[in-house]
Amino acid sequence: MGLKPNSALKASKTLFVLLSLFTFLLVGSQGENTAMDNVATERRAEESHRQDSANLLIFIMLLTLTILTIWLFKHRRFRFLHETGLAMIYGLLVGVILRFGVHVPRNMNNVTMNCSVNASPATLLVNVSGRFYEYTLKGEVSTVKGHDVQDDEMLRKVTFDPEVFFNILLPPIIFHAGYSLKRRHFFRNLGSILAYAFMGTVISSFVIGLVMYGCVTLMKAVGQLRGDFFFTDCLFFGAIVSATDPVTVLAIFNELKVDVDLYALMFGESVLNDAVAIVLSSSIGAYQPAGDNSHTFDATAMIKSFGVFLGVFSGSLALGVATGVMTALVTKFTKLRDFPLLETALFFLMSWSTFLLAEACEMTGVVAVLFCGMTQAHYTFNNLSPDSQDRTKQLFELLNFLAENFIFSYMGLTLFSFQSHVFNPLFIIGAFIAVFLGRAANIYPLSFLLNLGRKNKIGSNFQHVMMFAGLRGAMTFALSIRDTATYARQMMFSTTLLIVFFTVWVCGGGTTPMLSFMSIRVGVDSDQDSSVIVSDGTQHRNTKHESAWPFRIWYNFDNTYLKPLLTHSGPPLTATLPACCGPLARCLTSTQAYENEGHQHNDDSDELVLNDGNATMYGDVTVSTDASGTRTTNHKHLSASTMGITSEEALDQELAFGEHELVIRGTRLVLPMDDPPEPTVTLPPPPTSPPPFSDPFSDPFSDPRRNRL
Amino acid sequence: MGLKPNSALKASKTLFVLLSLFTFLLVGSQGENTAMDNVATERRAEESHRQDSANLLIFIMLLTLTILTIWLFKHRRFRFLHETGLAMIYGLLVGVILRFGVHVPRNMNNVTMNCSVNASPATLLVNVSGRFYEYTLKGEVSTVKGHDVQDDEMLRKVTFDPEVFFNILLPPIIFHAGYSLKRRHFFRNLGSILAYAFMGTVISSFVIGLVMYGCVTLMKAVGQLRGDFFFTDCLFFGAIVSATDPVTVLAIFNELKVDVDLYALMFGESVLNDAVAIVLSSSIGAYQPAGDNSHTFDATAMIKSFGVFLGVFSGSLALGVATGVMTALVTKFTKLRDFPLLETALFFLMSWSTFLLAEACEMTGVVAVLFCGMTQAHYTFNNLSPDSQDRTKQLFELLNFLAENFIFSYMGLTLFSFQSHVFNPLFIIGAFIAVFLGRAANIYPLSFLLNLGRKNKIGSNFQHVMMFAGLRGAMTFALSIRDTATYARQMMFSTTLLIVFFTVWVCGGGTTPMLSFMSIRVGVDSDQDSSVIVSDGTQHRNTKHESAWPFRIWYNFDNTYLKPLLTHSGPPLTATLPACCGPLARCLTSTQAYENEGHQHNDDSDELVLNDGNATMYGDVTVSTDASGTRTTNHKHLSASTMGITSEEALDQELAFGEHELVIRGTRLVLPMDDPPEPTVTLPPPPTSPPPFSDPFSDPFSDPRRNRL
Repeated sequence: MGLKPNSALKASKTLFVLLSLFTFLLVGSQGENTAMDNVATERRAEESHRQDSANLLIFIMLLTLTILTIWLFKHRRFRFLHETGLAMIYGLLVGVILRFGVHVPRNMNNVTMNCSVNASPATLLVNVSGRFYEYTLKGEVSTVKGHDVQDDEMLRKVTFDPEVFFNILLPPIIFHAGYSLKRRHFFRNLGSILAYAFMGTVISSFVIGLVMYGCVTLMKAVGQLRGDFFFTDCLFFGAIVSATDPVTVLAIFNELKVDVDLYALMFGESVLNDAVAIVLSSSIGAYQPAGDNSHTFDATAMIKSFGVFLGVFSGSLALGVATGVMTALVTKFTKLRDFPLLETALFFLMSWSTFLLAEACEMTGVVAVLFCGMTQAHYTFNNLSPDSQDRTKQLFELLNFLAENFIFSYMGLTLFSFQSHVFNPLFIIGAFIAVFLGRAANIYPLSFLLNLGRKNKIGSNFQHVMMFAGLRGAMTFALSIRDTATYARQMMFSTTLLIVFFTVWVCGGGTTPMLSFMSIRVGVDSDQDSSVIVSDGTQHRNTKHESAWPFRIWYNFDNTYLKPLLTHSGPPLTATLPACCGPLARCLTSTQAYENEGHQHNDDSDELVLNDGNATMYGDVTVSTDASGTRTTNHKHLSASTMGITSEEALDQELAFGEHELVIRGTRLVLPMDDPPEPTVTLPPPPTSPPPFSDPFSDPFSDPRRNRL
Repeated sequence: MGLKPNSALKASKTLFVLLSLFTFLLVGSQGENTAMDNVATERRAEESHRQDSANLLIFIMLLTLTILTIWLFKHRRFRFLHETGLAMIYGLLVGVILRFGVHVPRNMNNVTMNCSVNASPATLLVNVSGRFYEYTLKGEVSTVKGHDVQDDEMLRKVTFDPEVFFNILLPPIIFHAGYSLKRRHFFRNLGSILAYAFMGTVISSFVIGLVMYGCVTLMKAVGQLRGDFFFTDCLFFGAIVSATDPVTVLAIFNELKVDVDLYALMFGESVLNDAVAIVLSSSIGAYQPAGDNSHTFDATAMIKSFGVFLGVFSGSLALGVATGVMTALVTKFTKLRDFPLLETALFFLMSWSTFLLAEACEMTGVVAVLFCGMTQAHYTFNNLSPDSQDRTKQLFELLNFLAENFIFSYMGLTLFSFQSHVFNPLFIIGAFIAVFLGRAANIYPLSFLLNLGRKNKIGSNFQHVMMFAGLRGAMTFALSIRDTATYARQMMFSTTLLIVFFTVWVCGGGTTPMLSFMSIRVGVDSDQDSSVIVSDGTQHRNTKHESAWPFRIWYNFDNTYLKPLLTHSGPPLTATLPACCGPLARCLTSTQAYENEGHQHNDDSDELVLNDGNATMYGDVTVSTDASGTRTTNHKHLSASTMGITSEEALDQELAFGEHELVIRGTRLVLPMDDPPEPTVTLPPPPTSPPPFSDPFSDPFSDPRRNRL
C-alpha cells in the first residue's frame, strides 16, 4: 500500500529511485559494444551525463544560495520570511529563467514505432538490425503532450520523478520529526493531538471533498471542466491538502518561544496528520466500487477502504515501533557504545531499514519511519553513547534541513517547469475556500469537544492560531505530484501548489503578527512550564486530570516493563516482573539497571546524563547530575515499587516533582554564569553531554528545533 | 572525460544515477493512465517495487550484520580480519545463498520485437494499439546472455549499475581520504609520495600491461582465448589494478600506531594513485589509433592520450581546489559560523558541487573531490566553528564508513551474483604474477632513486611492507566493473575480483605479522615524532633538507598569501602584500587577522582553538591554547615578517619549534591524568574543541583514522 494503485505504473520507476540514496539498480547492464560502432550514441550519452550533472548543479547552487540568504536573514533578524519561503522564491526565479530564458532545442531522439505488441512489458528488447537493445518502460505518454508549451528538453530534465519525494526526501524529514518530538508536552496533550490528527484530518478531508464536489459540479454546469472529476477525486484532494506542515510555523514558534502547550498541539498534530493523510489518500485511491468506473457510493468498498486505512496505518506503526525496539535491544545488549561510529552507522541503517521493510511489506514506509523515529528517541537514544547521541541528532538534522529546503525550492521551480499545469480560477477559489472551511471544521468543533474534557482548556486564541497556522507543505506537495496523469490530477496539482505558496508566504509570514495580535505568551522556556512551577497539591491534581487514563496505563506499563527491558534505566526487571519470570528477568536486566536500583551511580556522572530522561522517570530524580555536584536531592521515596503507593499516585508525584526539581536545577545551572570568572568547578563536565536539566517526558536533547539553525 | 568513451553508452544510466543521492530524474513522467485498464501492469510494478525494497533490505541487513561483527571483533581484540574483509565474507555468503538457494523464476516480461529502426535512440515511444509508451535505452544486450547460468531475476536485481560506484559510493570515500589526510607527514614526504603515486603507478601499469600481454599471447597460442584481447586492454588492466587501497592496511597501521613516515608514504600514495589510476585508465580507453580497430602503436594517439591524461588530471585538480577555495572564502567572509547547521550544510553542498561541476565540465569528479577535500581540510576547516568541524568530520566519516563497507560487501556478493564471470586459470595466474611484479617495479627502483635524494632514507623494511601491503580495493573494483561488456573485460573483472579478495584477506590479514617480522616501529604516537623530539640544530637541518624546494616555495606562498587570504589566521595581508595593493589587502583581511597580528587573543580561547593549526603555522605558536591556561609560551620572535629573517629559516624554525612545543603541550595535557581527582582547573575546556595539541602540517583533528571506529 505504499503505492497508490492508480499511480502504480510509475512505481516501476521506484525500482530505481528507492535504491538510489545509496545505490542503484539497473537490471542486467551487460551489453556488448564493440567500439567505434556507436560513437554517436556514446557522444549523446556523454552529453546527457554532462547535462544531468549541470542540472543537479543548479539545484545545489540554489540550496547554497538559500543557505547564504537564510544566514543573512538570521543575521539581520529578519523574521517575516522563513527559509522555506525563501527556498521557494529562489526556486521560482530559477523556474522562470529556465522556462523563458534558456531554450534548449528539443532533441529529436524519440522514434515512434508502430508495433503489434498488445501489452506494455516492463522490459523491451528491441532488435535493431541484428543487435538487441534493452529498453525499460517509463510510463504511458500523453499524446497531447506539449499542448501548451514547447516540449523543452531542459524543463523535462529538471523534472524529478515524483517517487523521489516519497522514497528519498520525505523519510528523513519525517524521521527527524519523530526523533525530535518534544515528548513531555506531546504526551501531556496526547488525547487532543490524536483527536486533531485523526478525527480532524478525516473531518477536514471530507469537508474539503464535499466543498470541492460542489465546486466541480458548478464547473461542470458552466462548462469549465474538460475531463472527469469524480467524488473520489474530490476526497483525494481533501486528503492531500489536509496534511499540515510542521516546518515553517514551528520554526517561528521555536524562535519566539511560544507557549509550550500550543507548540505541542501544533507540532504533534502536524507530524501525525502527515501520516494520516498519506494513508488516507492511498485508501481513497484504493476505493473502487464494485461496478467498474461507476464511481458511485458503495458501502462495501467504503468499509474495505476503511479497513485498508486501519490495516496499513497500524501495520506501519507496528513495523516502525518493532524496528525501533530492535535497535534499542541491540544497542542495549552489545557494547557498541564504545565505538560511536559503529553505533551511529547501525542506528542509521536500522532506521532506514524500517522504511524498506515497510515498503517491502506493502505498508507505508513514511509512516513506519515516523513511529520508528519516536521509538528511537524514547528508548534507543538512552542507550547510545553521548557521542552517538550528538551524531545521530546532527545527522538527521542535516538530512532534514537539506531535504526540506530541496523540496521547497523544487516547489518554486515546478510552478514554471511543470508542463501540464491546469489553472482553473473557479477550482482555485473553491479550493481556497474549502481548505479554509476544512481547517475550521477540524479545529473549532474538536476544540469545543476537547475542552469539555480538558482541565487545561484550549483557549480561543490558541484555536485561532491553530486555524491560521495550518500551513501546507512538503507532504501535500509530494502527495499531489505523485500522480499528475489525468486532467483532474493536474488541476489538483496546480491548485495545491498555489495553496502551499499562499499558506507558506502569507500564513507563515503572518504568524508572528498573529501571535502578538492573539496575545499568545511568548518567551516561555519550553523546559519550564509556568503551570507546574508551584508544585503544590492542586498542581498534582491538575497533572493527573490532564493525563488521560489510557496514557497513564501506558505510562505505567512503559515505565515498569518496557523501559527496563529496552534501556539501561528504570527499575530492574527482576523487581517488576512476577517471580516466575525470574531467570528471564535476570537475563534481560543489565548490570546498570541494578546499579540504578541500588542508587550507586554517584561517580559515573556520564552514565547518569546518558540515562537522564529515564532516571527521572524512574523516580530517583536528578541524582547529582548537576555540574556543581554538591546537591544530591534524591527522591528515592517516590519509587513506586519500594514505597508501595499506587502507581498512579507515583506518576502524579513524579510528574510534579520532576517539574519542580527541574526548575530548581534549571536555576542552579544558571548560577555559574553569575559567579566570578573562576568558580571552583571540581571536574569539567563531559564534553558532549546534554545540559543536565531534564524531566519526565522531555525529549533527551533539550530542544532540537531550537538548535536547528 | 569522467566517462570512459567505451562505456559511455552506459553513461546514459548515469542520467539517473548521478542525481540519485538526493534526487532522481526521469524525463517526462507524465503518462495518461485511465484507471482499471492496466491493472496487471500496476500489479507488476507494485510487485517490482516491493521486490526492490526487499533487495535493498538485504544489503542493509548485510551492513548491519557487518557492523555487529566488527564490534565483536574489536571487542575481542581480534585483529586478523578487518571490517572490509568481513564485509566481503558476508557478501560472499549472501551471494551463495542467492545463487544457489533462492530461485525466482524468470519473469517473462521481455518481448523481442523486430523493428526497422536503424538507430538505437535514448528514448523510444512505442505505439501499442493506439497508446504510446515511453521506453528508455538501457544498453545493448548480449545475445549469448545467460549462457552459463539461468538468467535469474533475483540475481539480476541485486546487480547494481556500475556507475553507482563512481557517482555515489566513491566520492564520499575519496573526499574523506582527502579531508583526513595527515598533512604534516604528508607534506614532509611529498616528493616521495608524488613519485610513488605518479611515476610508480605509470610504471606499474606498464609492467602489468606487458606481462599480461605476454600472458595473453601465450593463451592465444594454447587456444584458451575466446575473444579479442588487445595491448590497450592489457594496459587498461594494468591501470585499474595499480590503484592501491588505503582502507584496510591503514586501519591496521592506525591501530598499531605504525611509524608515521611509513604511514604517510602508504596513505599518501594510495590516496593519490586512486586519482592517477582513474585518469590513466580513461586515457588508455581514449587511446584510439588512427586506423580503425587496428590497435597498433600510434605515436600521435599515444601523445594525445598523454595530453588527455595531463589535461583531465590538472583540470580536475584545479576544479577541486577552486571549489575548496570558494568554500573557504564564503566561510571566511560570512558569519555563518554562528549557525553550525547552515555551515555544515553549505560545506556539504559545496563539496558535492565539486563533483558535479567536474562531471559537467567533462573532468573526473572523483579526482576533483579528492583535491577539494584536501583544500577544505587545509583552509576551510580553520574557518568553521568548532561545532561544524566536528559535524563535517563525523558526517564524512559516517558516509565513508557506509560506502566503504557497502562496496566491499557488494564485492563479495558479486562473485556469485554476477552472471558473466570468465575465470581463466592462465590469465589469473598471469595476473597475480603481473600484479606482484608491477608493485615491485614501482616500489624498489623508485625507493632506490628517492633514497639518493632523501636524508631520511626509506629503509628496506619499509619497502618490503609497502610492497606487501599494496592492497587493491574499492577503486580497482569500481573501475573494473564499470565496463563488463566484452569478453576481455569480463575476464578482467573476474580476475580483479580475485586479486582484491586475495590482497584484502591474505595481505591485509598478514600485515600485522609482517610489521613485526620487518621490525617496524609500532606504538608511535603519530602526533609526536621521535626524530624531532630533540629540537636541536641538527634536527632543524634535517627538517629543512627533508622538505624539497618546491614544497618550501609553496609553503612560503601559502603562509604569506593564501592562508591570510582564505582563513582568519596568518599574518594580515596588509603586512605581506606590497604597498600598492593596500586597499585590496585591507578589504580582504579579517579583523581576526589583525588580532592575530597584535597577539591579542588571550581571552577568546575558542577562537584560538579554531585557528589552531594556522596560529601555529603563522609562528606565534600555542598562545595559551592549553587547558591549564597558565603557560603562554609565545614564539613571537619566529614571525618572519616582524623579525626580518628569511622565510626559509622561519619555516625551519617553525617546523622544529612547532614540533617541540607540541611535545611540551602533549606532555602537559597528560598531566591532569596523573593529578589527584580534583585539580584546580580554572575553566572547563570548550566542549567541542579538538584536543589542544597541534602543530604545523598536522591535520586539524588529531587523528581521524584513529577515531574512526
